[in-house]
Amino acid sequence: MTGIALLTVPTAGPDDLAPLTALHPAGLRADDILAVIGKTEGNGCVNDFSRTLAAAVWEPRLPGAITVFSGGTEGVLSPHVNLIVRDPRAHPGHDRGLVAAAGRSRALDPAEIGRPAQLGAVTETVGKLVAELGADPGDVHLVLVKCPLLTSDRIAAVRAAGAAPVAADTYASMGHSRAAAALGVAVALGECDTRTAEAALAGHADVDSARASTSAGAELDDCHVLVLAESARAANPLRALHGRMRDAIDIATVRGLLDEVAARGGTVRQIFAKADADPAGTVRGLRHTMLTDSDLAATRHARAAVGGLLAALKGDGAVYVSGGAEHQGPPGGGSITVVFEVPGA
Amino acid sequence: MTGIALLTVPTAGPDDLAPLTALHPAGLRADDILAVIGKTEGNGCVNDFSRTLAAAVWEPRLPGAITVFSGGTEGVLSPHVNLIVRDPRAHPGHDRGLVAAAGRSRALDPAEIGRPAQLGAVTETVGKLVAELGADPGDVHLVLVKCPLLTSDRIAAVRAAGAAPVAADTYASMGHSRAAAALGVAVALGECDTRTAEAALAGHADVDSARASTSAGAELDDCHVLVLAESARAANPLRALHGRMRDAIDIATVRGLLDEVAARGGTVRQIFAKADADPAGTVRGLRHTMLTDSDLAATRHARAAVGGLLAALKGDGAVYVSGGAEHQGPPGGGSITVVFEVPGA
Amino acid sequence: MTGIALLTVPTAGPDDLAPLTALHPAGLRADDILAVIGKTEGNGCVNDFSRTLAAAVWEPRLPGAITVFSGGTEGVLSPHVNLIVRDPRAHPGHDRGLVAAAGRSRALDPAEIGRPAQLGAVTETVGKLVAELGADPGDVHLVLVKCPLLTSDRIAAVRAAGAAPVAADTYASMGHSRAAAALGVAVALGECDTRTAEAALAGHADVDSARASTSAGAELDDCHVLVLAESARAANPLRALHGRMRDAIDIATVRGLLDEVAARGGTVRQIFAKADADPAGTVRGLRHTMLTDSDLAATRHARAAVGGLLAALKGDGAVYVSGGAEHQGPPGGGSITVVFEVPGA
Amino acid sequence: MTGIALLTVPTAGPDDLAPLTALHPAGLRADDILAVIGKTEGNGCVNDFSRTLAAAVWEPRLPGAITVFSGGTEGVLSPHVNLIVRDPRAHPGHDRGLVAAAGRSRALDPAEIGRPAQLGAVTETVGKLVAELGADPGDVHLVLVKCPLLTSDRIAAVRAAGAAPVAADTYASMGHSRAAAALGVAVALGECDTRTAEAALAGHADVDSARASTSAGAELDDCHVLVLAESARAANPLRALHGRMRDAIDIATVRGLLDEVAARGGTVRQIFAKADADPAGTVRGLRHTMLTDSDLAATRHARAAVGGLLAALKGDGAVYVSGGAEHQGPPGGGSITVVFEVPGA
Repeated sequence: MTGIALLTVPTAGPDDLAPLTALHPAGLRADDILAVIGKTEGNGCVNDFSRTLAAAVWEPRLPGAITVFSGGTEGVLSPHVNLIVRDPRAHPGHDRGLVAAAGRSRALDPAEIGRPAQLGAVTETVGKLVAELGADPGDVHLVLVKCPLLTSDRIAAVRAAGAAPVAADTYASMGHSRAAAALGVAVALGECDTRTAEAALAGHADVDSARASTSAGAELDDCHVLVLAESARAANPLRALHGRMRDAIDIATVRGLLDEVAARGGTVRQIFAKADADPAGTVRGLRHTMLTDSDLAATRHARAAVGGLLAALKGDGAVYVSGGAEHQGPPGGGSITVVFEVPGA
Repeated sequence: MTGIALLTVPTAGPDDLAPLTALHPAGLRADDILAVIGKTEGNGCVNDFSRTLAAAVWEPRLPGAITVFSGGTEGVLSPHVNLIVRDPRAHPGHDRGLVAAAGRSRALDPAEIGRPAQLGAVTETVGKLVAELGADPGDVHLVLVKCPLLTSDRIAAVRAAGAAPVAADTYASMGHSRAAAALGVAVALGECDTRTAEAALAGHADVDSARASTSAGAELDDCHVLVLAESARAANPLRALHGRMRDAIDIATVRGLLDEVAARGGTVRQIFAKADADPAGTVRGLRHTMLTDSDLAATRHARAAVGGLLAALKGDGAVYVSGGAEHQGPPGGGSITVVFEVPGA
Repeated sequence: MTGIALLTVPTAGPDDLAPLTALHPAGLRADDILAVIGKTEGNGCVNDFSRTLAAAVWEPRLPGAITVFSGGTEGVLSPHVNLIVRDPRAHPGHDRGLVAAAGRSRALDPAEIGRPAQLGAVTETVGKLVAELGADPGDVHLVLVKCPLLTSDRIAAVRAAGAAPVAADTYASMGHSRAAAALGVAVALGECDTRTAEAALAGHADVDSARASTSAGAELDDCHVLVLAESARAANPLRALHGRMRDAIDIATVRGLLDEVAARGGTVRQIFAKADADPAGTVRGLRHTMLTDSDLAATRHARAAVGGLLAALKGDGAVYVSGGAEHQGPPGGGSITVVFEVPGA
Repeated sequence: MTGIALLTVPTAGPDDLAPLTALHPAGLRADDILAVIGKTEGNGCVNDFSRTLAAAVWEPRLPGAITVFSGGTEGVLSPHVNLIVRDPRAHPGHDRGLVAAAGRSRALDPAEIGRPAQLGAVTETVGKLVAELGADPGDVHLVLVKCPLLTSDRIAAVRAAGAAPVAADTYASMGHSRAAAALGVAVALGECDTRTAEAALAGHADVDSARASTSAGAELDDCHVLVLAESARAANPLRALHGRMRDAIDIATVRGLLDEVAARGGTVRQIFAKADADPAGTVRGLRHTMLTDSDLAATRHARAAVGGLLAALKGDGAVYVSGGAEHQGPPGGGSITVVFEVPGA
């Protein structure tokens, strides 16, 4: 088992490969990149061509890696990539560290999107990656999934095949896909059984995973998965914590995580968080307007707001905040993972 | 000199007068309302009819008060009104308190918007109100100004009169109007002389006021002004502090103010803040995309982000965050005023 | 039975009552206004405060009239009102003419929106108005309905009452409400029976009315209805034709109607049309992107495009084009009514 | 001199190269493609990554061709590409036909954008291409130019170099760039002299070209230029006409062109048109709201409306309508070119 390094590098555009030049000075190699986890400057919704552009440029360059591009850098969020790189070097003074595995599910038929079939495919892929890591599910701190959505074309194809799409609205299909992927993660990590997860997908049960971070895009038809865990099989200065923001202004939970980092003498390297518009239409009893704003998608609102908070706490805008947190933390809140670095013994 | 009370009340819509029912239980009267300072759920830009609707409903009901409706409750911001009410009651245990005065400038010709004529009109009105309060300019913690903007109609009228509008773009005209109003405040508070303010308006000098909070709208053709000061002429539990956010993620400045409130045993009642997209295109050296997003106005981005931070710090979304901070705090940052309540001696 | 006159007057804003000054020169009186049918310059979606503002200003001024404000003047569409006014004057040379009746349904519970209960309420109101006119349903050329939608507040209220809203998405609720209203019109005009209409509402039957024009808004909780018919009981120069645009570029149908007007020596006075994004995602086999554009609501796209065509054909932008044509003409197309004036005999 | 063929082919996305498969059945070769003129489904504004994606995919595939991708398929417009291909085949029965030449200007410094330097560079490139064609400027029917814009990064670079950008607003910079390019075309075609063109660029003269169609994008730093002319040096069935839409609803001018095509026994193959929001804020005396809509860029409004008209007239949505018509036709109107096919003698 090899540990990983994490490089967070600003980008000048979705098609900017310059972050690769940061590898050599860091003693790392492009061939060792497991995953490119990026924030691109599109709308993060159905017609976000910034994600497709990033995929079109990065994927041929790194055929061995997976990509997860999350569109939407509203407010102070800053476009960047997080390179997850195998790090074969010895890091004296460490007896544990972060490990990661990345892979892709089978391709999904459009009719499967947002349905138990997708949930199962994600469970299977995550399970395989966790096994590959030799990690205990309890040591996993983050499972990032990029999953497909329904475009008009795909909806027409589903109907032409005599089936019904999970949603007739393309934007709504994103939420269904995120939900199925998140519940697939929950099953794989042993947080609930498949039956319960499928009930939750149908709206009949409340399940969420504080370690799932899923986002949908038109640029793929399978699911890209990255599993991040802490392990004694590796030795490097990276560590992780995860938590559950109860709502979009839950600064207490974030502070709790940051205080724990500080207590361990650590330095925050990155925050991965999900953001959502509370489906009840209120935050702590006060009305929000994210769900009645027909000019601006709710996920854009949510990313901007949570991004404003987390960027301020981190001290810069290169935070990974992704919108739409169905079953990723409690309704209106979201999962959050802090990756940090500790000094060697 | 009579002190004031502050009631912050959620609204169900821009035309919701229900907040008036909060007056009686608080021992206050509608006739004593000096100003209605509201956040409404429009886009905060040129075609924000939520502001006009609020004005259409509130102004006939309270002919003696001024209104300042700031549109845009992006993210977790929650629509509400802040009622500034004369409070003639005795508040034993206090030997000072908040005072306020409100008024309107003369009507501005569209050709004057964003120009020295507007700057001068604001200076004059603010000066008059400060004098009315018998306050030292140094005791003023907030000057809120609602000022006009240029619509297509007004631009055509200016041109028909043989003059040139300050901007051909209606959205851009808002920034010019906010700038002129803010610099008018700076002059009135003695923060700079008129010559310097006019140079700043022309882009040839750097001046800002940490106590100015100006916003533009199509719903008026004069400037509505509220001056808030601390004074020994009144005795009530309200106090205020102001500061200068250096950028949109300047949590340190906000924490400094909140720590001071806590040190004085106070409880935060409201935060009035300006938010802006840094004109340099970066925040702490990292690129933001607020100024290249042609789908979403930069002021909406900025409100959402700063609103996310301040709502989290206050603990609820009924914060007054207004977008576009030209000369109201440093570029990319913004003025901030915290109103709080202290226990009696 | 008294005939009507139609005044189409530009507005300077949603709150502009100046069109009333056009009445006197036309020999008409404000007290005789049956309906104000306006295009206002909002987004035509959930958070369209231009409609609410118009209603707030017009309704107290004309308590005896109904209002139908359709938001969204995208592209070349121009904000205006169409005043439908009782015209008691003799118009020699005419032995028939346009008549109209206006009314309101009972208030609807939010749980009824988009459901058979709404359909039934509209059928009842339209039926009553047609009877009041003494018109044969076959003589009706237009039934305009303004109907309610679901906001976050109303959705929460429905859920709190233990029921399920017709849609969890506020924008989607508009389509359900328009559909129920349109099918209610179809039943009232004898175009289908209630059972078929309810099946259509559930997605199990294809029914549409080429005379229904329904639009949803947050500014009301009942349905405002205007019925326009040609009748031998009145004598005035106004006539009407209606048709069925097959898709959003069906210029042939519109030309057919205009040619018929010309053949009868008439002059077009107004066009009332519905516009929609074809749910199949294509227009005449070519992909459109209205349903995958997460930045811009599909109804805004559709109004802009159909408005561009109809304004060019009419020769000015004061056309009534409303977005979202569920069961108002064929899918992707829309109902269209041309009101015109003929010379006396 | 070799004539050209025109293939207009729908695309499934900005990165869809499938249109190349249409070449072989048409007897054409990819190596002979001079230009790819596409409509992509972005917003057509500053952050339109659909254009960048198309360029990233098409340009490496066709290194010898130029690309002009115009974003924005609002309303019924349908994403497609127009392949301009050298056609060496004999077309018996024709003694003239369409010819084309394509090229690129020198790279422009950001400080030159929207300035006389850009104007001059375009004039030079167009002049060279016209000469290459051996065409009389009077035979040219269309000059398409794709030109750069200012992003936040480029604005910062200009300022860092001690210069001033033509506009501080990124969206506004697009208009300046289109204007400079259009005036460069006007000079090259002998429609005005350089001095007049530069005066027009500065706002001190009225000049426009009915044959210029320019659009700006962040995806390039030079100008891509295509010149289309009718010539007796080639022999093919293609012909062209151009005209000047006086405003966005000028159906008469379009009909005039189409009637001329019909009179010559021709069949319309494509329409290339520019669309704009009239800067006066009105169309034929009636107010439009394109310039006061802070939610939706004026160019998006204009494309949707003019696209609705032209798609209806052409009979399908694969029309090339581009937004922002500064100096390309009269203010509020736009240049229009119809390419058609005539039967052989």
